[in-house]
Amino acid sequence: MPHMKNQNGEIVGKLFQDLKGKVDAVLIVNSRSPFLDENFQYFTDVRGGVFEGSFALVTKTQARIITSKLEEGIAKKSGCNVDVYSTAQQRDSLIRSRLRGKDVIGINEAAVSVATMKRLRKILRGKKFKDVSEDISKCRAVKIKREIGRLKKAASIASKTAEEIPEILRVGMTEKEAAAEVDYLLRCNGADGPAFETVVAFGSSSALPHYMAGERRLTKGSVALFDFGALYWNYRSDISRTYFTKPLNTRMTKIYKIVLSSQEAAIKKISPGIRASEIDTAARTVIEKGGFGRNFIHSTGHGIGIAVHDSISISERSTDVLKENMAFTVEPGIYVPRLGGVRIEDDVVVTARGCRVITNASRQMIVI
Amino acid sequence: MPHMKNQNGEIVGKLFQDLKGKVDAVLIVNSRSPFLDENFQYFTDVRGGVFEGSFALVTKTQARIITSKLEEGIAKKSGCNVDVYSTAQQRDSLIRSRLRGKDVIGINEAAVSVATMKRLRKILRGKKFKDVSEDISKCRAVKIKREIGRLKKAASIASKTAEEIPEILRVGMTEKEAAAEVDYLLRCNGADGPAFETVVAFGSSSALPHYMAGERRLTKGSVALFDFGALYWNYRSDISRTYFTKPLNTRMTKIYKIVLSSQEAAIKKISPGIRASEIDTAARTVIEKGGFGRNFIHSTGHGIGIAVHDSISISERSTDVLKENMAFTVEPGIYVPRLGGVRIEDDVVVTARGCRVITNASRQMIVI
Repeated sequence: MPHMKNQNGEIVGKLFQDLKGKVDAVLIVNSRSPFLDENFQYFTDVRGGVFEGSFALVTKTQARIITSKLEEGIAKKSGCNVDVYSTAQQRDSLIRSRLRGKDVIGINEAAVSVATMKRLRKILRGKKFKDVSEDISKCRAVKIKREIGRLKKAASIASKTAEEIPEILRVGMTEKEAAAEVDYLLRCNGADGPAFETVVAFGSSSALPHYMAGERRLTKGSVALFDFGALYWNYRSDISRTYFTKPLNTRMTKIYKIVLSSQEAAIKKISPGIRASEIDTAARTVIEKGGFGRNFIHSTGHGIGIAVHDSISISERSTDVLKENMAFTVEPGIYVPRLGGVRIEDDVVVTARGCRVITNASRQMIVI
Repeated sequence: MPHMKNQNGEIVGKLFQDLKGKVDAVLIVNSRSPFLDENFQYFTDVRGGVFEGSFALVTKTQARIITSKLEEGIAKKSGCNVDVYSTAQQRDSLIRSRLRGKDVIGINEAAVSVATMKRLRKILRGKKFKDVSEDISKCRAVKIKREIGRLKKAASIASKTAEEIPEILRVGMTEKEAAAEVDYLLRCNGADGPAFETVVAFGSSSALPHYMAGERRLTKGSVALFDFGALYWNYRSDISRTYFTKPLNTRMTKIYKIVLSSQEAAIKKISPGIRASEIDTAARTVIEKGGFGRNFIHSTGHGIGIAVHDSISISERSTDVLKENMAFTVEPGIYVPRLGGVRIEDDVVVTARGCRVITNASRQMIVI
C-alpha cells in the first residue's frame, strides 16, 4: 500500500505540541452544510468539495480523511490518506477501526452539535471524549508560513478589487448590482469566491454595520460602504472601504478623517506582547475624542484565517495577547443613524517588531 | 409600547400544532458563523444580516428576536418583536426573563453545539430541555404559500440564468470565469446571491459530483456541467444543466439521453402519498437499464427551502412520504471517471395530484 506524502505535518504537530499528551487523537466532524467544521480544511488542506458527513482524524503525525465516494477524488488531491465509505455502517466501522487503541478522543465542542455528539458516543462506546476547542483555537491563532502566503494572496485579490470599485461605481446603480460587480471582480482577480456575503450599503443603509445589499440606488451627496473579501485556497481576506459621491457632506468627510486616524492609531500600536484590548482602546480613544464614541458600535477587529472570524478578538473585553504571525482585521467605524456610516478595514499580520498591513488598496478619501 | 405586527403566525402555529404541548417555547440559537441555524430565518423571516449570537424565541403565537445592537435595524424590519442587548450579561438576563414561567424549552439539537448547550444549561438552570429537531424538520418539509412563492421566484431566477449560459460559454474560458459569470447573472436576474457555491466542471472534472470550479479551460469535444441556484429572501433554488461542445462524443450524448429519461421517469412518479424511495427507484431503474447503474453515485434528490439541503431526502433509504407542498430536487446523474459526467437537476413542488416543475430552463441537449 503506497504511503502518500502527508503535507500537513507542521500544523498537526503544532496542535499536538499544545495538547501535551492530553488526547490520543482529535476527531473533526462535519455534519450537513452549513454545520461543517472549517478545521476539516485546516488540518487536511483539501481545496474544494463540500465534505458533509466526513471526518478528519488528526494524530501526532497526520490528518486522515474519512469521507464518502462523492468526495473521494477531491480528498485524494490533498495528499492525506483517505478512507472511503458507501454506507453509514461502513462509515461507523471505519471510525471505530481507525480509533482502535486510542482511548482519549479530542472533540471540537464548538462545532459538534448535540445530536452528532450523541451519535458519536454510541459509535465509540467506552472512549473518553475531551473538548479541545480552545487548543485548536490557540493553534489556529498563530499562522504558519503556508497560511500567511495564502492570506497575502487573498488580501492582494481583495485590494485589487477595492482599487477597481471606483471604476464600476456610478450614481443610479443599486447595491445589489454593485455587489454582483464586486463578486465578479473578485473571481476575475483570482479568488475561489467571495470570502463571505459581500456588503454594499449606500446612504443611510451604511449606518447598519451588518446590512448586506438591497435595491437602494446610489444618489448624489452620499456614501457607498463596501465590505468584502476573497476566498483563496481556504483562506479569507476581509476589507472595507467607504467611497463618496459629490457634493460632499462635511459631517461625513469629518467622520472619514476620524475613522482613518483611529485605524492608523490602532495599527501603530500592534506588536507582539501587546494585549488585543489595547489595540481596541487605541482605535476607540481617537473616535471618542472626535465626539463619536457612541457611534462605534462594534469591536475593532477579529482574527482572519480559514474562517472570516478566526480565533482571536480585538475588543475591549478580549484577553488575547498578540504574537508574531497572528493575522487579524483593524476596522474602526462610525455609524450615524439616518445619515450613514464610514468603516475602513484592513488585514494585518503581526511581525517580530510590529505588523505588516497586507491589504494595500488606498485609504485616501475617494470621491467618484 | 407599540405591539408590532407579527408576520410569522402561520409558521409558528404549524410548529406548535406538531409539538402538541410537549414544550412551552422553542429557543433557536445562533452561534458564530457558519454555526448559524437557518431556523432563525425560518421563524423570524428576517432578510439579510448575520445574527451571530442571536436567538429566536418561538412560542405558540410569535417569534421574538433577541439580538445585539449590530443587527437591531435589520431585525426590526422583520415585523417581529425585538430585544436588544449590548453585553453578554444583558443577553443572558434577557433570555432568562423572556423564558420566565416556561419550564420545557425546545432545542434544535441538530444545530446547537455541545459548547453552546453547556452555556445554555448554565444560563437557564432548572429548565427542562427537549430536542425538537425532528418536529422542526417535519414542519419545514411542507411549505406554506409564502414559502412556495419565494421558492418559485428563486427557481425562475436560476432558470433564466441557465438559459443565458449558452450565451456566455465559450471554448477557452476557465471554470472559474464561467462561475463568476453565473454568479453575476444570478444577481442581475434578481437573486440576493448564489444559493450555494456555484459548481462549474469542464471535461473529466464533471465526473466528480462535488467539484467546484478551478482553472481548467473548456476544450472542444467536451462537456460543461453547471450546478447552481439563486438565494431569494432566504429561499434557495438548485439547478444543474450539462452543455456540450463540438465535436460530440457519442458515449456522452447517449449518457445525456439516459439521464434525461431517468429524470422524466422520476418526475412522472411524484404525487402525494408516494414514498420518496420510490422516486429514487424510478430514476435509478432507468440508469441501471441503460447500463450505468454503478455510475449514479448519489441520491436522486433532496428537499429545498431555507436550506439548500432541506428536510427530506429522495434516496434509496429515505423513509419520507411525499405530501402536498413539499419541495425538492430531482437530479439523476451519470459519472464516468476520466471521461466526464452528466447531471440534469430541477426543482419541483408536490401538488394535490402530482407535481409542478418550478425550474423551467430547457432540458434539451444544448451544443455550443
